[in-house]
Amino acid sequence: MAMVCLSDFEAYAKKYLPKIAWDYIAAGADDCNTRDENILAYERICFRPRMLRDVSVMDIRTKILGTEISFPVGIAPTGFHQLAWPDGEKSTARAAKAMSICYIASTYSTCSLEEISAAAPGGLRWFQLYIHRNRAVSQKLVQRAEALGFQALVITVDLPYTNKRRDDIRNGFRLPPHMKLKNLERDFEVCKMSLMDPSVTWNDIYWLQSLTHLPIILKGILTREDAELAVRHGVQGIIVSNHGGRQLDEVPATIDALAEVVEAVGGRVEVYLDGGIRKGSDVLKALALGAKCVFIGRPALWGLAYKGEEGLQDVLRILQDEFRLSMALAGCTSVSEIGRHLVHISKL
Amino acid sequence: MAMVCLSDFEAYAKKYLPKIAWDYIAAGADDCNTRDENILAYERICFRPRMLRDVSVMDIRTKILGTEISFPVGIAPTGFHQLAWPDGEKSTARAAKAMSICYIASTYSTCSLEEISAAAPGGLRWFQLYIHRNRAVSQKLVQRAEALGFQALVITVDLPYTNKRRDDIRNGFRLPPHMKLKNLERDFEVCKMSLMDPSVTWNDIYWLQSLTHLPIILKGILTREDAELAVRHGVQGIIVSNHGGRQLDEVPATIDALAEVVEAVGGRVEVYLDGGIRKGSDVLKALALGAKCVFIGRPALWGLAYKGEEGLQDVLRILQDEFRLSMALAGCTSVSEIGRHLVHISKL
Amino acid sequence: MAMVCLSDFEAYAKKYLPKIAWDYIAAGADDCNTRDENILAYERICFRPRMLRDVSVMDIRTKILGTEISFPVGIAPTGFHQLAWPDGEKSTARAAKAMSICYIASTYSTCSLEEISAAAPGGLRWFQLYIHRNRAVSQKLVQRAEALGFQALVITVDLPYTNKRRDDIRNGFRLPPHMKLKNLERDFEVCKMSLMDPSVTWNDIYWLQSLTHLPIILKGILTREDAELAVRHGVQGIIVSNHGGRQLDEVPATIDALAEVVEAVGGRVEVYLDGGIRKGSDVLKALALGAKCVFIGRPALWGLAYKGEEGLQDVLRILQDEFRLSMALAGCTSVSEIGRHLVHISKL
Amino acid sequence: MAMVCLSDFEAYAKKYLPKIAWDYIAAGADDCNTRDENILAYERICFRPRMLRDVSVMDIRTKILGTEISFPVGIAPTGFHQLAWPDGEKSTARAAKAMSICYIASTYSTCSLEEISAAAPGGLRWFQLYIHRNRAVSQKLVQRAEALGFQALVITVDLPYTNKRRDDIRNGFRLPPHMKLKNLERDFEVCKMSLMDPSVTWNDIYWLQSLTHLPIILKGILTREDAELAVRHGVQGIIVSNHGGRQLDEVPATIDALAEVVEAVGGRVEVYLDGGIRKGSDVLKALALGAKCVFIGRPALWGLAYKGEEGLQDVLRILQDEFRLSMALAGCTSVSEIGRHLVHISKL
Repeated sequence: MAMVCLSDFEAYAKKYLPKIAWDYIAAGADDCNTRDENILAYERICFRPRMLRDVSVMDIRTKILGTEISFPVGIAPTGFHQLAWPDGEKSTARAAKAMSICYIASTYSTCSLEEISAAAPGGLRWFQLYIHRNRAVSQKLVQRAEALGFQALVITVDLPYTNKRRDDIRNGFRLPPHMKLKNLERDFEVCKMSLMDPSVTWNDIYWLQSLTHLPIILKGILTREDAELAVRHGVQGIIVSNHGGRQLDEVPATIDALAEVVEAVGGRVEVYLDGGIRKGSDVLKALALGAKCVFIGRPALWGLAYKGEEGLQDVLRILQDEFRLSMALAGCTSVSEIGRHLVHISKL
Repeated sequence: MAMVCLSDFEAYAKKYLPKIAWDYIAAGADDCNTRDENILAYERICFRPRMLRDVSVMDIRTKILGTEISFPVGIAPTGFHQLAWPDGEKSTARAAKAMSICYIASTYSTCSLEEISAAAPGGLRWFQLYIHRNRAVSQKLVQRAEALGFQALVITVDLPYTNKRRDDIRNGFRLPPHMKLKNLERDFEVCKMSLMDPSVTWNDIYWLQSLTHLPIILKGILTREDAELAVRHGVQGIIVSNHGGRQLDEVPATIDALAEVVEAVGGRVEVYLDGGIRKGSDVLKALALGAKCVFIGRPALWGLAYKGEEGLQDVLRILQDEFRLSMALAGCTSVSEIGRHLVHISKL
Repeated sequence: MAMVCLSDFEAYAKKYLPKIAWDYIAAGADDCNTRDENILAYERICFRPRMLRDVSVMDIRTKILGTEISFPVGIAPTGFHQLAWPDGEKSTARAAKAMSICYIASTYSTCSLEEISAAAPGGLRWFQLYIHRNRAVSQKLVQRAEALGFQALVITVDLPYTNKRRDDIRNGFRLPPHMKLKNLERDFEVCKMSLMDPSVTWNDIYWLQSLTHLPIILKGILTREDAELAVRHGVQGIIVSNHGGRQLDEVPATIDALAEVVEAVGGRVEVYLDGGIRKGSDVLKALALGAKCVFIGRPALWGLAYKGEEGLQDVLRILQDEFRLSMALAGCTSVSEIGRHLVHISKL
Repeated sequence: MAMVCLSDFEAYAKKYLPKIAWDYIAAGADDCNTRDENILAYERICFRPRMLRDVSVMDIRTKILGTEISFPVGIAPTGFHQLAWPDGEKSTARAAKAMSICYIASTYSTCSLEEISAAAPGGLRWFQLYIHRNRAVSQKLVQRAEALGFQALVITVDLPYTNKRRDDIRNGFRLPPHMKLKNLERDFEVCKMSLMDPSVTWNDIYWLQSLTHLPIILKGILTREDAELAVRHGVQGIIVSNHGGRQLDEVPATIDALAEVVEAVGGRVEVYLDGGIRKGSDVLKALALGAKCVFIGRPALWGLAYKGEEGLQDVLRILQDEFRLSMALAGCTSVSEIGRHLVHISKL
């Protein structure tokens, strides 16, 4: 089976993963409309490619928060990588480092932050945090991440409660007993997701800033109003995200929400995006609309499911090749040449 | 079979009800375009959710005509509940009372108003009236309802004649002989729907007002012009409804007509909606667009078909949980915080 | 099999007619996009129904060119009715007379004008004319029609050449040998469609006016420019038509072209429509957009195929009942109350 | 099997060509969205046909770069015609000459320019050039073409690199060993596509102009900005093209990009189009929107696959007949009467 594009990895994962794990990864909230719209929305954006530019030398590197990455794609925080591959997040960390990109490790990793760090020393990593009802737990996590060299804190803001994913309920999904939420096991006999704190507010951003020197990035912003508040509260970045369509259903596709957030932010902080990236040309569209970098969630897990670290690198290399080629065919030789002029959003 | 969302109840009812009963409940007029559009229209409305608000304490109660209900969903008037469950409307009344919501009993109930009242004493109930060619019949019904503690009169205005529902004609649908239109049997040997009066006009609202102290609500208004007339004639509420797509086909989906009616009414009376509600997020959208409360028709019958009173409570609890969760994920902690800012109506 | 709506007759005809005849009747030009769009376009038009009007007494009669018809539907000119029923156009004429509506007999009838007249004496009939390369042939036809009491001349203007209908070519369609183009057989040994004259221009309207006292109606106008020219050339009516999607493909659906023609005409002559009428509510929409009457083509042939004259009456009665009911549910009691305010054209 | 329209030839080719060859011809880049949109976009353009014009004498000839062609359709440059028919481009040349139209021979022909010229002496031919990393190779090709009587040079500007066509990768597509890139074999032992030069810029237009007296046409322009640059650099024509959807995916359909390019050019040079032409009415739409001539790619190969030179003539004759008929039904008797007034672009 030739692995030519990301949907080949999706097909592989669907075929070979246990149904309960596949369903968990694929799940969206309610009718899954936003999950699917995240992908479909890209089809309504057309390129306006420019011809007869010298594209013989291509430079697809960029920087996020001042650190260079090999191309503007990173690994979004998703939980439970051992569902896809026995080595779990250790493989993810190794692949990301090998590709010189950023990996956002999830609070809900099945490897500990220490294991992740040890697996790929020196790799660029950010740490995703769910704020816990017991703030001391979160404080310890932040301090561990900072001590281990994670370079930013990504706060998920769209999950005060977990929304209903119908298949997970039908399947009675729960983490298999041999997998642990390694980052939390020191603190709890039994670790429940319901321990996330729905009372978190903008003021807690100040509390986080008091705990750490790390830059703070908010993940899950979808409106200009919240983008403005984020900037005013001194965060360093925003990830436009709808949690892969797993939280409130029937919110905008992230690529549709991006322009509004970018406009509100006006360059004061970096804006990223996750959700729906399946091709290199999707990355190009997101950058044209103002994203500094995009992050992939499910495709990373499909890569792990295929061949662990190696499979994830395959996924990333395909995206990288497609992105470079799309850039060249659109007439851009470096990321700095990508701009709003490159796309047209059709009325459809 | 896990009952996770309302479509699970629909699937159950379709599988277990006699085809003739299922078809009657599912029927729409002509090509059923409006019936289906009632549901599809919600997909064109996107949320603009707000983050980092303290949603740890949620209050989903509201008031309709001054009476508190546990959440802004009620039971729309539909006929012949015994088609779905032997106890018919008595079960409906019990479930509605148990859930502290409003039940609008239909003229065409297979239990009498007295039986309904006795089944769930003290429950919040409104009475739906078709005005009869013999006005004395309608007068008696109004007076019985008022005497039994029904708290409002809901006048259906979109059924001067019954429109053609093709499957009912093919099936030769008629009420099974062991079921009776209990509210009308004292007055007729044979009760025919054709006894509804197609000559009813706005002046009859004055006649109704002369008969009763109950507030009067018009069900079936779809235009700003009629909304304005309704207010001028002194009604207390409007239910934006297209009779579940069973009357004139190819009128707007109710969620699409809602904004026009709300704007015309300008807060002078309460506006409600029925038609197409299948998820808690649909309720949230209707409230964002100005509805005070929504009413469910077919889903209530699916719940009855599943397990009678208990099944209907299951349906309502799912809607309630979904509504609460959608509110929290959109950043609202009480119904009063829901407003037009919460949604975006896409051009599609 | 219950015949509940027009698509039931379509299904019957498709099942029981010889494939070659069915294909001929169903055929559209090229990709059949306009044929199908004629029907789909109605779904983009929503009613704005008005409530609480006394609709107990309904009057659905109207007049065309001063003559009363029982409701605003007539029989469009289509060829070869014997393909559908042995008695052919004689049955059509009888059904139209029985229903007190107008029948436009085609030049390409398989019964002669004399036979049609004799079959239903006194019926309201118009005669559809293709102008022949040999003008004397057309002149004789016009004079025969006038002498036989046909009350108007309908000139088809969209067929200078016959467009390609792929299935007819694949089937090698030709009229079965026992059927004749009775109106033309006196003049030709072999009658070929290619004898139609592609050189006809607006000046030929003056020639036609010199031949007859009959009012002249142009069938096939789709633009405001041609509507204006038609009025200036002194015609008495316009049928907005795209030949049922059988001529130039990818022209507008007739219901979409209607408003433009009606606006250009500004009430100076009557405007009619054919194409895509499948329900009584379609008739109501066409009248709301300015048509004085609509004409049905394929549905008339389906009715003939079902049971000849009786089947066509069934079709017409269904349309009549549906039209009356739609009017009542929209709040209109007479055709004069139908207007533009009754519909909303959705952006979709 | 009756060959009635171009899709009949498509079906034939799909059935009888080796899968690997069919897939190569059918291939689009990535998700093939642009390939498919090239065709679908025509459905959103409606004709506004005019009636009662004398269309008895039709003249469908036009001129491109001053040379008369029998109708405004030519053969777009596509590679490897021997994949479709043993005689390859020699058959193409003969068919084009027989039909008095223009054939744009590809650099990647499986017959040499000399063979093509000899096969159909005196035919109107243009030569399509990919600019080679070794400029001397390209220079020689240009000079051979000019010496052989090719009348224009068509420079493909949208292929600095070849984009990914998934099926070709899965199939391991490569030219069968008995086929050669005849135009290049004198210069290379092994000829690779990767020898195309991605460093070509607008300045190379001046270099080309210095090599030849032939008019220069740019193929692959999609924006007003590049159209303006093309005119400023002194080219004689532009082919609005997206390489049949084989290069950057999710660019506009060519018929959608045409109006923008035509407007920018403002009549200073001729504008042509390729991509998605499947019916004579498509040609009429392209001309209405400002194209001087259109070119067919895949349909030409389907014609070759059917019966070589004769099959391609069948394809062209069908297009010619359809174009003539569409023109007549739209009320135009010569190409000069076709204009923007003839079409309406629907919002959908």
